[in-house]
Amino acid sequence: MAHRILHNYMNITLTSGKTISSEEGSSILESLKKADIFLTSSCGGKGTCGKCKVLVKSGQVESKSQIKLSQEEISSGYALACKTTPSEDILIEIPKESMLIVEGQIATGKSKDLQALLHAAGAEVDPIAERILINLPPPSLDDNISDLERIKRELLAEGLECLRVPHRLLTRLGETVRKGNWQITLSTIKSDDCYEITNIYQGDCKSPHYGIAIDIGTTTVVLYLINLSDGSLVDVASIYNSQIQFGDDVITRIVNATEHNQMRSIHHAIISDINNLLLLLLENHNLTKDSIDCFVAAGNTTMTQLFLNLDPASIREEPYIPTANIFPLSYAGELSIKANPNTPVYVFPCVASYVGGDIVAGIMATGMHKQEEVCIFIDIGTNGEIVIGNSDWMMSAACSAGPCFEGSGMKHGMRATDGAIEDVIINRKTLDVEIQVIGESQPMGICGSGMIDAISEMFITGILDQKGKLQKDVSDRVRDGEEGPEFVVNYGKDKDIVLSEPDIENIVRAKAAIYAGFSTLLNEVGFTFNDVHKVYIAGGFGKFLDIEKAIILGMLPELPRDKFEYMGNTSVTGAYLCTLSKKLRAEAEELSQQITYMELSVSSSFMDEYVSSLFIPHTNIDAFPGVKKLMGN
Amino acid sequence: MAHRILHNYMNITLTSGKTISSEEGSSILESLKKADIFLTSSCGGKGTCGKCKVLVKSGQVESKSQIKLSQEEISSGYALACKTTPSEDILIEIPKESMLIVEGQIATGKSKDLQALLHAAGAEVDPIAERILINLPPPSLDDNISDLERIKRELLAEGLECLRVPHRLLTRLGETVRKGNWQITLSTIKSDDCYEITNIYQGDCKSPHYGIAIDIGTTTVVLYLINLSDGSLVDVASIYNSQIQFGDDVITRIVNATEHNQMRSIHHAIISDINNLLLLLLENHNLTKDSIDCFVAAGNTTMTQLFLNLDPASIREEPYIPTANIFPLSYAGELSIKANPNTPVYVFPCVASYVGGDIVAGIMATGMHKQEEVCIFIDIGTNGEIVIGNSDWMMSAACSAGPCFEGSGMKHGMRATDGAIEDVIINRKTLDVEIQVIGESQPMGICGSGMIDAISEMFITGILDQKGKLQKDVSDRVRDGEEGPEFVVNYGKDKDIVLSEPDIENIVRAKAAIYAGFSTLLNEVGFTFNDVHKVYIAGGFGKFLDIEKAIILGMLPELPRDKFEYMGNTSVTGAYLCTLSKKLRAEAEELSQQITYMELSVSSSFMDEYVSSLFIPHTNIDAFPGVKKLMGN
Repeated sequence: MAHRILHNYMNITLTSGKTISSEEGSSILESLKKADIFLTSSCGGKGTCGKCKVLVKSGQVESKSQIKLSQEEISSGYALACKTTPSEDILIEIPKESMLIVEGQIATGKSKDLQALLHAAGAEVDPIAERILINLPPPSLDDNISDLERIKRELLAEGLECLRVPHRLLTRLGETVRKGNWQITLSTIKSDDCYEITNIYQGDCKSPHYGIAIDIGTTTVVLYLINLSDGSLVDVASIYNSQIQFGDDVITRIVNATEHNQMRSIHHAIISDINNLLLLLLENHNLTKDSIDCFVAAGNTTMTQLFLNLDPASIREEPYIPTANIFPLSYAGELSIKANPNTPVYVFPCVASYVGGDIVAGIMATGMHKQEEVCIFIDIGTNGEIVIGNSDWMMSAACSAGPCFEGSGMKHGMRATDGAIEDVIINRKTLDVEIQVIGESQPMGICGSGMIDAISEMFITGILDQKGKLQKDVSDRVRDGEEGPEFVVNYGKDKDIVLSEPDIENIVRAKAAIYAGFSTLLNEVGFTFNDVHKVYIAGGFGKFLDIEKAIILGMLPELPRDKFEYMGNTSVTGAYLCTLSKKLRAEAEELSQQITYMELSVSSSFMDEYVSSLFIPHTNIDAFPGVKKLMGN
Repeated sequence: MAHRILHNYMNITLTSGKTISSEEGSSILESLKKADIFLTSSCGGKGTCGKCKVLVKSGQVESKSQIKLSQEEISSGYALACKTTPSEDILIEIPKESMLIVEGQIATGKSKDLQALLHAAGAEVDPIAERILINLPPPSLDDNISDLERIKRELLAEGLECLRVPHRLLTRLGETVRKGNWQITLSTIKSDDCYEITNIYQGDCKSPHYGIAIDIGTTTVVLYLINLSDGSLVDVASIYNSQIQFGDDVITRIVNATEHNQMRSIHHAIISDINNLLLLLLENHNLTKDSIDCFVAAGNTTMTQLFLNLDPASIREEPYIPTANIFPLSYAGELSIKANPNTPVYVFPCVASYVGGDIVAGIMATGMHKQEEVCIFIDIGTNGEIVIGNSDWMMSAACSAGPCFEGSGMKHGMRATDGAIEDVIINRKTLDVEIQVIGESQPMGICGSGMIDAISEMFITGILDQKGKLQKDVSDRVRDGEEGPEFVVNYGKDKDIVLSEPDIENIVRAKAAIYAGFSTLLNEVGFTFNDVHKVYIAGGFGKFLDIEKAIILGMLPELPRDKFEYMGNTSVTGAYLCTLSKKLRAEAEELSQQITYMELSVSSSFMDEYVSSLFIPHTNIDAFPGVKKLMGN
């Protein structure tokens, strides 16, 4: 007789009313995942990121780790879902900040803005993936050419001379044309001046069809669901890049991929993030895989290589060479993306090892490659990439800013989503703190723009000195925390939100790298800040990055306010544009070839500039006359 | 404690001296296969074809089936390897006819003949798969383009403008160029006027490299191992197509594939045959997969579709439409061929559902598409396909001849290999029978040419009448067998080799279909046999098809002997030519477009011609004046 393993099941009831089943020994995280409820889990369930907190309201649980939970939280009943298993039926509440963020239906405004941007770029809705409906004349003894030749004959009559049909699409072709009664819809993509058929459907499936634009950020991954028939943005979904478990920055991930043999797992992590978000988008809109015609992804060079399963080892070693900057079209199947295996995946071309496709996409979003005046583009994400130039030339560089502005590596850091403190004002006299929270909900953490605000306000009010040290005697909000001195940004019922001295050091190093990047690049091309027409700022901040405060911090140069334009996530915007326009896709490819790259890491002038920038706002205070004045107050 | 299943092992010793291990419960066939000893097994080990006979010389065995073994064989100790398991250590002898035929090193003559044919076709050794050796300048901070762009730059300098590199080749590119110290060898194939890289090796691997030409016959599969560096034929391997277990002819296989849901298994069968032969060729010549740069396969349309995993359903139903006639390049990996997954598989274009790539390859081998005079090409394999035409026009048709000439469905039928009776002479006076056996070994069966010889001799000597009935009173070699009257071609020690009346009916139906095909096609284009300059005969006969005897049988028209030319397996010859020449490959593609197809199955004149041809030699004996004269003797 065969052995049987008897499994016990427990119920997990959510405060929302839903009850799910949990197998004995499974973590709460695993059980929720099986029920398609996704929690943020940057570390991939290793119990190290502390992001998958749940509140156990009743029932016994067993927790293997409580790392990243405060004493207060533990006594209130918080547990890490990945390290906690129910011992009996339990009732839990999932805090908003633990939920994988999936924005709902996009405000019509955002979709309209993007469509306006497409038109402003001189493009129309002409998606890179097209559907073609054809009615074939049924075969007869007198017209007995093969199914494939019949399709080609029809397409040739419509002017499509060059046509590629991969072998894998032929397997079910005979059945499809006959079941569709000789009416079929082809999904196609243009590649190397040839139309390639990527899918064949029976009957009329011309519209609607969809594309997915992806920003593969080092810290966050964002997916746009785009209706390719009308160009509208249908929905957005985003998540922390779960590669974070292999390191916060690209270098640590490359080391893990190459020296610790984790390439497969790291590749799998990003693919799995994309698959989770894709599944949610499809489910939310009752779509099947067959409705997705293409993916267009933009990321920095390392993220792109890890996404494409390309060994990134040589990116890290001088002379810093990527495997490729322009990538052949790949397919969902070969990347294990859970779409139709033939669905094409177009990846934005990169410039060099440290200026990637996200930057090319970003420039596309700003349109600065078509302007006569010299502009600066800066993407402040996990790295800080800078491009200076105009329609004639472009110069780029990268400065490792670190992922702090996206909340990573910061005690209470979080992305600019609901619950994030995005604005901090400290009363010059009373030193009272006023905050603004995204979504006007309970504050759960602090995002990049909030950090910049808080630090510059603390600096102006004397709570922080020029070296970034907290001054205990100035404000009673400065206290001794677990990691040394910390400033309480907000006193909370459950927890206080603080910025610790190590947090502040993090930010100062990041802003110094950015400012030194600007200066070095401008010097290199013989310009000064005064020659700059516009500064386009992209990155994972909230909507309202306070430019003045970023200047006080010394992250941005002191220029008139109207020269700065905050652009949001330009990587996904650029991907959106190129999903919807063949012309813009071609433009992006040309652009990637025109940008010259400067390697800052071997530049001694960059190191000098960096060291000078480690002060707030800068060693050379005369470069910041306005800030100097403020400091005088 | 975990359970352990204890396996018992027995030894199987071969008379050659080799001993292999056999797990309890495994058939002898399986155990031999594990030890890389391959037996013929047309039915795939189902115990129905009787081809995997072994002689058990000592030791106990258990046999589940003895179908296809004669009483004599059973009492001598023969057993079916697929249905027999050893009960203890055994000693067996593997008869030559049970061994999977792998011809040894090719006689230099054959290779020279083929190379001469290549030159006669106006081509040089310019294989469709090329290797390119490049020395890359190592990257530096001043020359920091990506690895892929570095390769492209080098190739562009050599004049290769259009270059495709599939995503899957990038995965290990970085490692390969560095380990090879910036010297690499690229395998490439030209496709759609673009070079496609199919493999990248570190260092200098330019030569030698190899290609595999494949004839996918309905009954037999033949592989040629070709040295692409010098064009020589290195070795040949062949095997019965194990799809035979799903039917002897294409129609039965289509029915099984589509109505009995066996598509996957049927596809797998041919792939597994090719993999077995490939493995043997590689092992015999100490080659690795990496040395194989391409496969070039030719087969009839159904075989081609089953090979490519394309549903053949519509080939069988009026108006008889294949999925494709011109196939996109596919890759070993997507077909599960056990070569490097990126190795390209080029498949010969087909003409129509019943005139396939084997015929296009055949015409290439004859060169009749370049001659002014009208010629006939006939391939007598499992089907009989006929082409009539010259350099200006070509007309083709197919007549279902059945697989009898390849030995299938015939009591003692076998292919034209060692042990096959290929020549039969019956003394006009004594009626004594004289035979010639291929390899001058013990006769083991009778091949196509032997059958034609035997039947025409029996007819001329009056042992057989015009309707194909055996005359008991004429020869004492006519006796009652298991399937009715039979003629003993050879009395043997172990077994007699006979042709039964059903065997003879088989042959007569086949020859009638072929002759009717000739006549119908000639009528259609308004020619007679007298207008024909040459008749090229291809097919699985031995080297010495006796044309005179085929005329007596009424299979071939009565024309002067020098108008006939026997060409052997032209399918694999054509595949050989196109493997070695880009020019000939292009010619084959053009040719496939120029051949007009006539559907005989809906032609009433074909049916009339067929019925008239069911007599030996023909109802209209005046078309065979020479035979008429002989009959008078």
